[in-house]
Amino acid sequence: MTSTIDGGAPPLLDSEGARRAYELDRKHVFHSWSAQDLLDPMVIAGAQGSYVWDGEGNKYLDFSSQLVNTNIGHQHPAVVAAITEQAAKLCTIAPSYVNDARSEAARLIAERTPGELNRIFFTNGGADANEHAVRMARLHTGRQKVLSAYRSYHGGTQLAVNLTGDPRRWANDTASTGTVHFFPPYLYRTAFHSTTQEEESQRALEHLEQLIAYEGPATIAAIILESIPGTAGIYLPPPGYLEGVRELCTRFGIVMIADEVMSGFGRTGKWFAVEHFNVVPDLLTFAKGVNSGYVPMGGVAISPEIAATFGTRVYPGGLTYSGHPLAAAAAVATINAMDREGMVEHAAELGRSVIGPALAGFAQRHVSVGEARGTGVFWAIELVRDRETREPLAPYGSSSGEMNQLLAACKSRGLLPFANFNRIHVVPPCNIGTADTEAGLAILDEVLDIADGMVG
Amino acid sequence: MTSTIDGGAPPLLDSEGARRAYELDRKHVFHSWSAQDLLDPMVIAGAQGSYVWDGEGNKYLDFSSQLVNTNIGHQHPAVVAAITEQAAKLCTIAPSYVNDARSEAARLIAERTPGELNRIFFTNGGADANEHAVRMARLHTGRQKVLSAYRSYHGGTQLAVNLTGDPRRWANDTASTGTVHFFPPYLYRTAFHSTTQEEESQRALEHLEQLIAYEGPATIAAIILESIPGTAGIYLPPPGYLEGVRELCTRFGIVMIADEVMSGFGRTGKWFAVEHFNVVPDLLTFAKGVNSGYVPMGGVAISPEIAATFGTRVYPGGLTYSGHPLAAAAAVATINAMDREGMVEHAAELGRSVIGPALAGFAQRHVSVGEARGTGVFWAIELVRDRETREPLAPYGSSSGEMNQLLAACKSRGLLPFANFNRIHVVPPCNIGTADTEAGLAILDEVLDIADGMVG
Repeated sequence: MTSTIDGGAPPLLDSEGARRAYELDRKHVFHSWSAQDLLDPMVIAGAQGSYVWDGEGNKYLDFSSQLVNTNIGHQHPAVVAAITEQAAKLCTIAPSYVNDARSEAARLIAERTPGELNRIFFTNGGADANEHAVRMARLHTGRQKVLSAYRSYHGGTQLAVNLTGDPRRWANDTASTGTVHFFPPYLYRTAFHSTTQEEESQRALEHLEQLIAYEGPATIAAIILESIPGTAGIYLPPPGYLEGVRELCTRFGIVMIADEVMSGFGRTGKWFAVEHFNVVPDLLTFAKGVNSGYVPMGGVAISPEIAATFGTRVYPGGLTYSGHPLAAAAAVATINAMDREGMVEHAAELGRSVIGPALAGFAQRHVSVGEARGTGVFWAIELVRDRETREPLAPYGSSSGEMNQLLAACKSRGLLPFANFNRIHVVPPCNIGTADTEAGLAILDEVLDIADGMVG
Repeated sequence: MTSTIDGGAPPLLDSEGARRAYELDRKHVFHSWSAQDLLDPMVIAGAQGSYVWDGEGNKYLDFSSQLVNTNIGHQHPAVVAAITEQAAKLCTIAPSYVNDARSEAARLIAERTPGELNRIFFTNGGADANEHAVRMARLHTGRQKVLSAYRSYHGGTQLAVNLTGDPRRWANDTASTGTVHFFPPYLYRTAFHSTTQEEESQRALEHLEQLIAYEGPATIAAIILESIPGTAGIYLPPPGYLEGVRELCTRFGIVMIADEVMSGFGRTGKWFAVEHFNVVPDLLTFAKGVNSGYVPMGGVAISPEIAATFGTRVYPGGLTYSGHPLAAAAAVATINAMDREGMVEHAAELGRSVIGPALAGFAQRHVSVGEARGTGVFWAIELVRDRETREPLAPYGSSSGEMNQLLAACKSRGLLPFANFNRIHVVPPCNIGTADTEAGLAILDEVLDIADGMVG
């Protein structure tokens, strides 16, 4: 992966610029998912490939891909060039017109989505992609209710956060948006008293089928689920599970929505995570990796049946920036670069030969590691106080002093981790170099020694 | 306004490229607010200032500013340069970090918003800006209900479209999102049997106060309204109305949300439309004009009181692209260019000296014109079959053969109009040249002759 070999620092914000950026931020910027007065945010002065630099010139290996979106790393030259070129031609145009960048992005995405999901509705991000997917499902079926999984995340707008099954929903949940939550298969903390993945899969499907029966199949518009859940824990669906969900959806006329906002575009070592399971959903939502977040974009890939529902009937939804030319040009360049440089295969290989074996070793050697799991460049390490009881190192929905200490230890060693509750995720860019990956894993290994000391 | 003087065609997509873009669009792009099989969308091959070119090389004067977002016209060189420069430095970074472009955009916006709305939460567009504003209001007040106006538009996501008071809500309305609609003041089609603007203002306020009493003041989190309603008709609030709403909000502890997604950033001849009324809302939402839509961006400007609610308590909302560097850099360049080139004052002057007088003339001379109203570069012409009955030329919520004919007549004369139901809006860029404005108005004058023939 030549594009991520470290070639020294990119142009950086100087220290005076960093100081001013910090001061203005504290005065004027209201931050996502935060208590504003309790923040001391880090200045990012520059970024390149798998690295970022802070305001003091310190360099960090980005094992978070920011919010798991820079699948091609920072500042990929082909995508920067495409943005520059499109900016010179046409920055913006209304969704009602035809734009060549949008058309080409739609083609490239449609060619990669599974089955015949060949019509693309573009949005600004993942949340509105899921909002629109639910709307399509409701109008297609004439039903209102939507089932989604606990331990899931589907976005920050009102409907999307109510679909969400993690604690980010709670403060926003008025039990009024027609969402019902089911238990997903998650053997490590099974809700079904299972002992094997096969049992977990079967019991989770029985549970879902029962829940459908009790809710009333004819009331359910859609089942939405992340093909491989992301922030909620990167717990892979066990054998047969997604196939079973597909079968239930088909049997009861329910629309299956695969949320691939985080798992799509190479993250799991395939273009889309559903490909691991040989399942074709009716709608597939995406964002993040589609253009690595270089320009805001999301979307919904739509089956012919659902597209036909809106053939002669108006689809009652839209947005000013749908199919934005700059975002579309970045998507075209991203997808082409991923193809040309074999990034999806590289991500798969890294998972198979580097990250997977390393994490298996951690799980053996480190008493603080309860489980390590994943695929491609999409891995979670579950930290526990006790391997027997599986008591997490931070409670569900929260952090802990220990976890904060471990994250600080990563940063002080030059690694930017991605963390959620008691988990550290290993989610570097798809095109991170092997040596960089190994360097990051070596830091994690050291930090897990500290964790072992906490729980030992 | 040198930036919009017509300097010939920009680089255009060639006819083969236009043909291919069209074919791929029809095959793969799912369009906003449309019946997909009934479309024959126009290819835009290029754009410059106030002009766009179609796939056959025909040139059109853009009197729509696309979706009323290109306030600085197409391809403003300073903004294109800023995007190019930022793309070379840093395309994307997570919202938790400090980024200099984001900090500077927040400062420039905070300096222009009225009162002390000095903290900026960035979103991807107007819909999620309104979604988050409502969330802030609900959590700040501990109340759920939100009042919004009929004949309004607040965005396409589920909560935003339920706030909406125009027919785009209907297909998505499950009466479950805690929204209640009130009648706004709109003298031309008064709901209050008024005969003067003063009477309309007073009666609309009495109506709102009654509605608050019946709904229960302590159940109402927010009143959201467009400072000057946009797509719904550009009907200016009469004297005292917004001040009265502000007083009701203050009296009952209700959060006042001003939606300035369309009316903000120079459109009305002020930075924000509320400035016409000497009113400071508690939250102000924006998008579109903030960077003319060159990169997707929206946001909420927040009062100190509401920001303080989330000082030590987590704000439960966010998004991957909040404060996106590329979008922020485009906003910085846009605001600075608007300042440097006096675009806001120019928009005000165009409204006062060119568009206003011309439309007043239309209303006198053309029997098909029921009313013409607006300010700055934000005007509506209301077409009627009969000036006495005020029967619209297309029914509420729909179009008509006549309206379609008139819009086609605009296009065949090289003018891209913005239309809604029975109205044609005059909403060119804030920096359109005077001669171009006059040329567009002359085309409208001709087209209104045709309209007169239809109704005469």
